[in-house]
Amino acid sequence: MAKPRAEVSLRLSFGGQAPTLDERTVRLLELIDLHGSITQAARALGISYRTAWILVDELKACGEGSVVSAFRGGTINGSRLAPAGQALVEQFRRAERELANFLDQLNDGLRLER
Amino acid sequence: MAKPRAEVSLRLSFGGQAPTLDERTVRLLELIDLHGSITQAARALGISYRTAWILVDELKACGEGSVVSAFRGGTINGSRLAPAGQALVEQFRRAERELANFLDQLNDGLRLER
Repeated sequence: MAKPRAEVSLRLSFGGQAPTLDERTVRLLELIDLHGSITQAARALGISYRTAWILVDELKACGEGSVVSAFRGGTINGSRLAPAGQALVEQFRRAERELANFLDQLNDGLRLER
Repeated sequence: MAKPRAEVSLRLSFGGQAPTLDERTVRLLELIDLHGSITQAARALGISYRTAWILVDELKACGEGSVVSAFRGGTINGSRLAPAGQALVEQFRRAERELANFLDQLNDGLRLER
């Protein structure tokens, strides 16, 4: 019998009105950090600026305020992750790493017993 | 900051042409076992008999043949889980229990660190 492999999709929920943090949302935050721009992050994900902006805005409800802050440097205006946004990304990626380690162990032990 | 809670959806994959075993598929097998009938199991899940039959038929590719077998007892004709079907259910539920235990530990440790 083929050996099964357990796979999961991770979500972090915060209760109340807060949106659920999933891979796509975390990727959006990471891309904003990378590009310094919500517009470019949205383009890289193939979503509209408006959708990206709404996702980012809703993430305020996860914790301690805005996850993105504006910055102005010389002639450049951009966005970067605020500490609350960095905390969300770190939390999700850490949970993901621990989950991946656990799944490796679980999959080593998975056998179909009859 | 609100305390996050990790949640996951479990799937077992078997590679090749085999379908992925998920909560709905496992529930279908459990309901067939409970009712002794694909028809009644499909009704309980709100899916058509045809959809249920196709799901069950495709699960052959996960391992060692048919997951459901026909039985005839007196005037009753029904279906019940074959050993291959029981093995799939047990495997999924065991992986789910181990995953739930791990998530309890993970969630105890989840804090947003700044």
